[in-house]
Amino acid sequence: MNNNCLFCRIIDKELPSTIVHEDDLILAIHDIHPKAPVHILVLPKSHINSLSDTTERDDKVLGQLLSAVRIVAEKTGIARSGYKVVINNGADGGQIVPHLHLHVLGGQNVAGVT
Amino acid sequence: MNNNCLFCRIIDKELPSTIVHEDDLILAIHDIHPKAPVHILVLPKSHINSLSDTTERDDKVLGQLLSAVRIVAEKTGIARSGYKVVINNGADGGQIVPHLHLHVLGGQNVAGVT
Repeated sequence: MNNNCLFCRIIDKELPSTIVHEDDLILAIHDIHPKAPVHILVLPKSHINSLSDTTERDDKVLGQLLSAVRIVAEKTGIARSGYKVVINNGADGGQIVPHLHLHVLGGQNVAGVT
Repeated sequence: MNNNCLFCRIIDKELPSTIVHEDDLILAIHDIHPKAPVHILVLPKSHINSLSDTTERDDKVLGQLLSAVRIVAEKTGIARSGYKVVINNGADGGQIVPHLHLHVLGGQNVAGVT
């Protein structure tokens, strides 16, 4: 855990969140500023700044991150209607919080949502 | 392989592409209609329609998909400047080709690119 990291503090339950899914490596929560009717953040529990800070040893957590996307899509009723997954990495990607996170957006046509 | 699938035909080398990275499970190629200076498609070699068609048994290939994103970002020089990863799933996600694929976009600020 990184005490200066907003998402680490949420993962540690020090800050509140609305949990959609949790397993040994992953926490998925509702985004507090949703850009679509369904907007979930999928987070690795371990502090990883971005995809570019991972190594081959992180393949298991990376696989579980995408697997968790499938699970939260089912839980929130958007698995069949469709959804978009966005990962912003680093400055050009517009990453704001430096803890790897996947946005899952759905509940309407989200093709144009960034 | 699905003979009716554009990406399967590319993976099978029946159709040409410019390969950025290849391993046992993954092929990464340049998008022929780039939306940014760097625009890579990362594909599982096995035919999977979308994330919602995966199961827990696909965690390995899902992990390697995100690991391949890190590798192609390094190979194309955008690992430090940043990049966005987009996965369009199903109708609401605007998915066009029904073979799971990750877009990797970078080489400029891509925060607003869909």
